[in-house]
Amino acid sequence: MAKSPEEEHPIKAFGFAASDSSGFLSPFHFSRRENGPEDVSIQILFCGVCHSDLHSLKNDWGFSRYPLVPGHEIVGIVTKLGENVKKFRVGQNVGVGVIVGSCEKCESCEQDLENYCPRMIFTYGATDKDGTRTYGGYSDKIVVNQRFVLNIPDNLPLDAASPLLCAGITVYSPMKYYGMAVSGKHLGVCGLGGLGHVAVKFGKAFGLKVTVISSSPAKEDEALNRLGADAFLVSTDAAKIKDAMGTMDFIIDTVSAVHSLLPLLGLLKLNGKLVTVGLPNKPLELPVFPLVFGRKLIGGSDIGGLKETQKMLDFCGKHNITADIELIKMDEINTAMERLAKSDVRYRFVIDIGNSLSACKT
Amino acid sequence: MAKSPEEEHPIKAFGFAASDSSGFLSPFHFSRRENGPEDVSIQILFCGVCHSDLHSLKNDWGFSRYPLVPGHEIVGIVTKLGENVKKFRVGQNVGVGVIVGSCEKCESCEQDLENYCPRMIFTYGATDKDGTRTYGGYSDKIVVNQRFVLNIPDNLPLDAASPLLCAGITVYSPMKYYGMAVSGKHLGVCGLGGLGHVAVKFGKAFGLKVTVISSSPAKEDEALNRLGADAFLVSTDAAKIKDAMGTMDFIIDTVSAVHSLLPLLGLLKLNGKLVTVGLPNKPLELPVFPLVFGRKLIGGSDIGGLKETQKMLDFCGKHNITADIELIKMDEINTAMERLAKSDVRYRFVIDIGNSLSACKT
Repeated sequence: MAKSPEEEHPIKAFGFAASDSSGFLSPFHFSRRENGPEDVSIQILFCGVCHSDLHSLKNDWGFSRYPLVPGHEIVGIVTKLGENVKKFRVGQNVGVGVIVGSCEKCESCEQDLENYCPRMIFTYGATDKDGTRTYGGYSDKIVVNQRFVLNIPDNLPLDAASPLLCAGITVYSPMKYYGMAVSGKHLGVCGLGGLGHVAVKFGKAFGLKVTVISSSPAKEDEALNRLGADAFLVSTDAAKIKDAMGTMDFIIDTVSAVHSLLPLLGLLKLNGKLVTVGLPNKPLELPVFPLVFGRKLIGGSDIGGLKETQKMLDFCGKHNITADIELIKMDEINTAMERLAKSDVRYRFVIDIGNSLSACKT
Repeated sequence: MAKSPEEEHPIKAFGFAASDSSGFLSPFHFSRRENGPEDVSIQILFCGVCHSDLHSLKNDWGFSRYPLVPGHEIVGIVTKLGENVKKFRVGQNVGVGVIVGSCEKCESCEQDLENYCPRMIFTYGATDKDGTRTYGGYSDKIVVNQRFVLNIPDNLPLDAASPLLCAGITVYSPMKYYGMAVSGKHLGVCGLGGLGHVAVKFGKAFGLKVTVISSSPAKEDEALNRLGADAFLVSTDAAKIKDAMGTMDFIIDTVSAVHSLLPLLGLLKLNGKLVTVGLPNKPLELPVFPLVFGRKLIGGSDIGGLKETQKMLDFCGKHNITADIELIKMDEINTAMERLAKSDVRYRFVIDIGNSLSACKT
């Protein structure tokens, strides 16, 4: 019989887990492996709350396994290093994102695209190389192979930096891959949530004109005056959408709900690119005519490789980019998830693990 | 009151037109404009029968206007030149494709992308600059602005060259734009009709490995042994499709019928590109997960600009590429359309206008 989560490894760990698809999170005792020669042990200080965490908790995609400890926007400090780890030091601020392992030898891994490795290992809810379950960052510590550990630039506040590990790289990588980082071009950012608001910041840092496309008129003031967007379009305002037709070079579509692509494609110029990073759980409708008659494309992108994630973090350090967050205590997580389900967050919850998790110990 | 088609211009012309959405084609007397200073008058010898002609005849897209003279794969000889036309000579073999006009000053036109000009004028069924209707190549003559006239390389047979003007450029242009012309890469060609069979020939000329994906097992022998494809996949053979998953760099999807994109996306590798040049009259289903998890894209493309079309024709001259055709007489066109509707053609009907149209005069 397999050992219990608390007994399968030697290092005692504590976090919050859901035991079923109600998604309700409760205190959970489990364990982490001993630090191996390639490993970095990390004391977790902050963990961002990604919308994927909510989807996983609720088993929206159908492959969740319980008990499930979410969290893949992890920031903390190094407590132990394996003998082969030279690039980190104890006490250093580091981050862990969406993946903690990959095969490290396939074509994707060789191109530093571990995020597309067929054997990539998600930070939580996956099966690790030793056959045990991975548990995420809603917990006090984690042990991760050095390839999957990132340096957090010293000038960034750790709490607001944590969402960069997923939300940040998820929008940065396609902006680079699809050639959007071209000063003077016009970027539409569809959906102003955790991903979208960071996309606005990257867009401005790349020198783009940025228009936010959102279903919430209430977000206009913040988009323009706090996040620095150049324009704001309410997606239901047919007249304004019509006026803006054919004006955008690129759109980053961060919306996970099922939605119509037709108006978005219409906003694009000839040769325009619409990149979707959201994951609707049903297929969308693909109108072919605008693709053909405007030589437009719809592409996807999934987080980023580790080298690119480090580049993104260094870029954020240089341009002082972090997420706008609401810092919560660990025992506020279930309320936060209810608010997240209603998109009631500006713009990312981050759990203050370091100052609030241990008080929940039972 | 507007003049009748026969009286609105000074030059008498004769062709075949449909008078309603039955699409039945009958002899039709109309007229062409006098040759202006920028114009080339062409005696039509051959005209390819494009699937778009059938869609237009039947008003499948809802914007057909009757009487409708189809035909936009036109090859003929120059009979008259305007005083400003220096690049052609009387007696030269020339071609006219899908468009006969554009604004010539917008951003698209300035980039030699007249095919994306918002004021482009289709070769038939459109309103010309003088307000009259355009009539296509199922006719004895045409007068076209020199910008929209193409040279046909001397070594190509005129009948088999005519489909290059639409089918050829429609697949050549996206292969160039989306970066497919890279020797050693693996191209899937979905649909082995007029467009698909030319795409196979271009693929081989570019040094690609080419796999045909078709719903017709009967086409395997021809695909491999006549067209030179490297492999053949029956789209309904789930086992073989599964074996081929993740092996293709690009797919050109020429299928106009509503069809599933999921298996095609599955055939693509990481970063794979699916380019659709067909025009289904309903939206397709877009599965987002494979786009995101494989950083794949779906793009469109519509014919090509005039400079690129000439380049394509020159490339065909160099590599001896033409379409595989069934030459028909003008009075066989209605039967040919019935066969085309059933995809019963290897691979393009071409009307022998020069030798068979005048006999139909009433």
